[in-house]
Amino acid sequence: MKIVIIGSSGHINYAIEGIGLDKECEVVGVAPGSKGESIDKVLNMLGENFKGKVYGDYEVMLEELSPDVAVVACHFGDIAKVNIKALSYGCHVFTEKPLATTMEDLKALKRVYYQSGKRLCAMFGIRYKPWFFTAYKFVREGAIGEIRLINTQKSYKLGRRDEFYKKRETYGGTIPWVGIHAIDWIHWFTHKRFKTIYATHSRKYNKDHGDLEVTALCHFTLEDEIFASLSIDYLRPENALSHDDDRMRIVGTDGVIEVIFNKVFLTNKDYKNQELPLEGRGNIFVDFLKEIKGNGSCMVTAEESFYATEVALLARQSADKNKIIYLP
Amino acid sequence: MKIVIIGSSGHINYAIEGIGLDKECEVVGVAPGSKGESIDKVLNMLGENFKGKVYGDYEVMLEELSPDVAVVACHFGDIAKVNIKALSYGCHVFTEKPLATTMEDLKALKRVYYQSGKRLCAMFGIRYKPWFFTAYKFVREGAIGEIRLINTQKSYKLGRRDEFYKKRETYGGTIPWVGIHAIDWIHWFTHKRFKTIYATHSRKYNKDHGDLEVTALCHFTLEDEIFASLSIDYLRPENALSHDDDRMRIVGTDGVIEVIFNKVFLTNKDYKNQELPLEGRGNIFVDFLKEIKGNGSCMVTAEESFYATEVALLARQSADKNKIIYLP
Repeated sequence: MKIVIIGSSGHINYAIEGIGLDKECEVVGVAPGSKGESIDKVLNMLGENFKGKVYGDYEVMLEELSPDVAVVACHFGDIAKVNIKALSYGCHVFTEKPLATTMEDLKALKRVYYQSGKRLCAMFGIRYKPWFFTAYKFVREGAIGEIRLINTQKSYKLGRRDEFYKKRETYGGTIPWVGIHAIDWIHWFTHKRFKTIYATHSRKYNKDHGDLEVTALCHFTLEDEIFASLSIDYLRPENALSHDDDRMRIVGTDGVIEVIFNKVFLTNKDYKNQELPLEGRGNIFVDFLKEIKGNGSCMVTAEESFYATEVALLARQSADKNKIIYLP
Repeated sequence: MKIVIIGSSGHINYAIEGIGLDKECEVVGVAPGSKGESIDKVLNMLGENFKGKVYGDYEVMLEELSPDVAVVACHFGDIAKVNIKALSYGCHVFTEKPLATTMEDLKALKRVYYQSGKRLCAMFGIRYKPWFFTAYKFVREGAIGEIRLINTQKSYKLGRRDEFYKKRETYGGTIPWVGIHAIDWIHWFTHKRFKTIYATHSRKYNKDHGDLEVTALCHFTLEDEIFASLSIDYLRPENALSHDDDRMRIVGTDGVIEVIFNKVFLTNKDYKNQELPLEGRGNIFVDFLKEIKGNGSCMVTAEESFYATEVALLARQSADKNKIIYLP
């Protein structure tokens, strides 16, 4: 299976790790996906084993190599455009999120995708982290009854971000880039639609990062009056034990389950804030390859990838305009 | 110092513990504050040492005994009315929150209070819990820099609540009754005004508790684009290790501090998610008595008590009407 990598600005590690686990796969080409994007990072990660070709123009690469799968991780403002091209050249697409940074781009991408007959999967690799997958399994098996309330958290170290993070046009915003993960968790755990969205975000104290919002807060109401909060910040101290501090607390009619410090704790009639043994689900890209080969189905669907993007863009719009957004 | 207790529906334990610590204080009378309210609980707590008189009508008690301090803990819908009476009879007032369950009652109470020359303090005793007071001290001393984002949580066991919890008129709502604590923390920690309020609440799955909202979520924007979330639920499993699960996470420009599991953790340039030694601040009612006697100032002011009530009522209104509320 021929794989190309377009861009090196996102979580290409998911793909490179996955490719390393699948002997039928080979990276045949690498190219930048955005103007001025360096691909040093991806070349470093591929290392000496890389036997493919390096291109300056990804469209030439797509045309010359006719790859089976395109891994897309360019500047976020170009993701939709590159995905459209890759689908048009007959590739399955494993792509960085958000799938688009404007609603127009999202619509255009969806149109091309649904005509393509190809597969698409966003890099929601956090679902595969054992702590999230374990919590998901328990919730789906009924450990907490009906979900009523969810609190999620994304907290990152800021460090020094690349220049493209500093412009809304190339970055897309912190809710679509960082918050989208938790939007995905909320939808994944509940299987419910978002009905009302309210969000705020702020650029204050962003240490010269231009348009980048350094704090954000989202408030979602899903079907059946399920509420979900999402707290986002880039203020995790550089000194902290890890880059990120992802959390999720799910309150149900029969229990509470919590993902915190990469662990899972459950309280219900049988458990008293007890730590659960973790269960993994492997690598997201391997899962996606299985689906392409017809040997299984990837946990992240194209529909979910589009939906999380749509909700994230609406939340950004809510924050930009300071208004409540209602979904049908 | 003569003290009366009106009602036994709230946290009279703060007062009774405080009275036990002050030899100049004596409970001279007890009466219900609401129609049909039992005062068995307060009589049980006072025990055999109680030498005062039991009244059926608190106004008769106020008139006959001319107490120095009234402790008010009736049904929440009657708090403002009873406070107004107590102030009118020349009492200082130590009162359950919210100070009122309607904006009209709040206005009336404020008017009477500011004319009275007396002291008033809401039962925001959680401020005195060593974990909250310790976090407060570190934040005020600059441990996390400028506050940018706050996440708060109130989670309670529901159990079987008294009948008056089941009607909005007598109960007031879950945001004013439970959420108000976290509203108070947010204001106390930041010393900032609330500018925008958005909230939702739901009665679904409230186990036959009538109007009582069993989940709620609030989203506040304070001055300087500081965001604060508040998650409230009555879904803490009966089996959980404690009645409540109060939490607060404060994200600053130079660090993150967190109150969780009755402990405090700090991350900044000097601390890596390190547990802090706890420091207490005694009993809230003792503090209030000191203020009355001119020997100090209580940590909870009347202004703050009114303000937290106002914000809680506006949040309830936001949730009732599903609209954003803007404050001047």
